[in-house]
Amino acid sequence: MTALSIENPVFQTYAIAAALMVLKIMLQGWMTVYRMMKSNSGLASPEDLRPGPLNPTPQPEQLEINDYVDRSRRMHRNDLENIPAFLAVGLLFVTVGPALWLAQGLMYGFVAARAVHFMAYATKQSHEVRATFYTIGSLIVIYMALHVLAQVLALP
Amino acid sequence: MTALSIENPVFQTYAIAAALMVLKIMLQGWMTVYRMMKSNSGLASPEDLRPGPLNPTPQPEQLEINDYVDRSRRMHRNDLENIPAFLAVGLLFVTVGPALWLAQGLMYGFVAARAVHFMAYATKQSHEVRATFYTIGSLIVIYMALHVLAQVLALP
Amino acid sequence: MTALSIENPVFQTYAIAAALMVLKIMLQGWMTVYRMMKSNSGLASPEDLRPGPLNPTPQPEQLEINDYVDRSRRMHRNDLENIPAFLAVGLLFVTVGPALWLAQGLMYGFVAARAVHFMAYATKQSHEVRATFYTIGSLIVIYMALHVLAQVLALP
Repeated sequence: MTALSIENPVFQTYAIAAALMVLKIMLQGWMTVYRMMKSNSGLASPEDLRPGPLNPTPQPEQLEINDYVDRSRRMHRNDLENIPAFLAVGLLFVTVGPALWLAQGLMYGFVAARAVHFMAYATKQSHEVRATFYTIGSLIVIYMALHVLAQVLALP
Repeated sequence: MTALSIENPVFQTYAIAAALMVLKIMLQGWMTVYRMMKSNSGLASPEDLRPGPLNPTPQPEQLEINDYVDRSRRMHRNDLENIPAFLAVGLLFVTVGPALWLAQGLMYGFVAARAVHFMAYATKQSHEVRATFYTIGSLIVIYMALHVLAQVLALP
Repeated sequence: MTALSIENPVFQTYAIAAALMVLKIMLQGWMTVYRMMKSNSGLASPEDLRPGPLNPTPQPEQLEINDYVDRSRRMHRNDLENIPAFLAVGLLFVTVGPALWLAQGLMYGFVAARAVHFMAYATKQSHEVRATFYTIGSLIVIYMALHVLAQVLALP
């Protein structure tokens, strides 16, 4: 059996964690859209000031940076700095045949760390809280990359 | 036969769509370079004001934000918020053995939606046009992630 | 034997290059953290001005853009514009069965080009140096995507 197969329990773990993280990235985009519409501000392009169904009475201030909307964009950027690397290294990790408990601990641990980071960022918790869960997620990805390197370089 | 093999027609569909989307990301970088050189502005780093073959007569204003160049950077950021998630979830989608017509509809649909989004953004169409094709692409990725989750969680 | 297996030397090449590039993305995040703490500036969120262990005596100027910190963020953004596309297309490239020397040349060439780009950006080399190594990395990814497309479209 090949490692990258839906019958492999380690691959199933990866598939669940990766699908959840893909949903996280996409829903962060919709959180930005929701906040733009709710606050009627934080628009990014000059043409967004043309009157239309999404913006019936445009105002020049709508192009200014608004922390309510920009916070969601910063959260999105933070996702992009972490999640695609996890998606790639997670797949590699499956191919080196780790123990199931290790894969579950790391991958579900990453998902949990990013979920708490999201909540801490959205609710403006202090820098220390956000940094703690950023660090946990980041160290998991770094460990997985080093584990893959060690396994591949140890091959005969 | 393993699902992630070039002999699998569903994988072929993914390979074509993914290669096109990789080209899209890379060419967006070159569109930014082209616009920086054509407008001689929108530079990002202070050292870019040193005289050299790419910038023989530097001016401080070249570091200011210029919508012509910044538009291409915003398009690039929008790509990064959508395409890497598609690349990861598309691979997972192949492993759960979907019908070929479904994979083709979703994956080529995503490529088409991003192509129209690109044209709408580059030509400054109204917010509603851009939002429509962003939404189509986003919903396709979200559907694929939910489909993968449902299939994996339904395994015995 | 399936192509996406740790026994395949071409896949091993991809695994090494991809793991190194994942480390590059993650460590760029830590370079930003290091520079924020060393310069005590370049913070991104208003709540980071609350006093705490990471920032005992906050000052409003800490939220202003600081080139020392922002440079690391720009390097990170440049990574995100290039590396996730490489990670996805590299995997596809393995599945079309390239010669080992070609895979090694392209993949280790990409890693080397990004490493030199990193050094050029961090040490504020002139635009031309940075652009040269950006171009090498970008052309490698574009070549790999075209190679995959050509191979898949030539299948019977």
